Amino acid sequence: MDGRIDILTLFPEMFDVFNYSIIGRAREKGILNINTVNIREYTKDKHKKVDDYPYGGGAGMVMSVQPIVDCIRAVKKLNKGRIIFLGPKGKTFNQKMAKELSKERELVFLCGHYEGIDERAYKYIDMEVSLGDFVLTGGESACIPIVDSICRMIPGVLKSEQSYEDESFYNGLLEYPQYTRPEYFESERVPEVLLSGHHENIRKWRRLQSILITMEKRPDILKKTKLSKEDMKLLNNYIENNI
Amino acid sequence: MDGRIDILTLFPEMFDVFNYSIIGRAREKGILNINTVNIREYTKDKHKKVDDYPYGGGAGMVMSVQPIVDCIRAVKKLNKGRIIFLGPKGKTFNQKMAKELSKERELVFLCGHYEGIDERAYKYIDMEVSLGDFVLTGGESACIPIVDSICRMIPGVLKSEQSYEDESFYNGLLEYPQYTRPEYFESERVPEVLLSGHHENIRKWRRLQSILITMEKRPDILKKTKLSKEDMKLLNNYIENNI
Repeated sequence: MDGRIDILTLFPEMFDVFNYSIIGRAREKGILNINTVNIREYTKDKHKKVDDYPYGGGAGMVMSVQPIVDCIRAVKKLNKGRIIFLGPKGKTFNQKMAKELSKERELVFLCGHYEGIDERAYKYIDMEVSLGDFVLTGGESACIPIVDSICRMIPGVLKSEQSYEDESFYNGLLEYPQYTRPEYFESERVPEVLLSGHHENIRKWRRLQSILITMEKRPDILKKTKLSKEDMKLLNNYIENNI
Repeated sequence: MDGRIDILTLFPEMFDVFNYSIIGRAREKGILNINTVNIREYTKDKHKKVDDYPYGGGAGMVMSVQPIVDCIRAVKKLNKGRIIFLGPKGKTFNQKMAKELSKERELVFLCGHYEGIDERAYKYIDMEVSLGDFVLTGGESACIPIVDSICRMIPGVLKSEQSYEDESFYNGLLEYPQYTRPEYFESERVPEVLLSGHHENIRKWRRLQSILITMEKRPDILKKTKLSKEDMKLLNNYIENNI
């Protein structure tokens, strides 16, 4: 990425999470440029307040419009990317969205907190994205997996380009079972075929396992996937010999 | 919570994210007891390795079974909760699951990393949960929002009990727009009704807004919600006067 990601938040320290593991390494190498911007620095309130009681009553606090809008305006000078708000009214994040966003040079993420943001801030937002159908204490917890998922598809972040093409959801099916050494673990052995060195058989076994596990665990995603002639042959062969 | 949450991970530092904001405050007050356990401490490999190449070939590394199983066995002595693995083959996390899990006294979360875990470790896992249909660099990025979402429903974590009953997904609809001071922001005014002090009108306006926004953004969740007679009356009244 010769571009950049800016994360607008009241809790920049939470994004120290990106100092570790795969994302941390990519940042150290200069492949990823992830910055945090503290929204609190933009409030014009003399007590540095960034929230207030909701008009009309109700529990909780609402994030004020002024600090958010001034923060967005300041960041726009450095980052021309879309302003993405992490919120429950957005489209649910998925792998297709991750792939599309990973191709954009620059991105800005806005994390809400408390009971939400003043509705008037929506005018400055380009897109709202939801992590899923559950409630969080703040947008930060949604921003972490979403930025992680996008960044891992940016070239150079994973060691091998192949790595992300093989995985769950990428080919529309769940991943086949994986095994590593030792051959025996407390009397449980690695499936014979994986020790055979017969690449073609291994490929077919893995494909069949992917189909079977998706059938069992996520029939909804299997329905959306077109099975090939070979897939049907593998399945028929399995049914004839096992049932 | 007089119980506890243990998170089994190769990157305990990533969970410093729970030192801040609402979860951080609840931990300081002793309401939440969240611990991390480093899986690497349980490997019997002399070089402290916790992963290896997949049997049968392919890109990436697979987490070895021995350190995971020994780590789980050690934690089970302190925590009797279910062992929940964050993985793509699990049931998709949602608000109902968050609520159910928030009622359990103890919970253990296992974060996988790299290309997955040795299949033989599944025998020691009670439940697999997926964050959504996208791929992450590791289970840590999924564990953060899931633990956040569960913990915020534990009594005492949010300031007011009412707070979480009002929100998106809790009542099956998206939340109504929120506004806070000032009354005018760059010529945009807060809706008149919210300034009226007329509680009954505010309640009706908010309910209608919730229905309308859910209709627009998430018709799929509106279908699952039973609208009341009053809801239908609000909607009919809106249609007659606005269209």
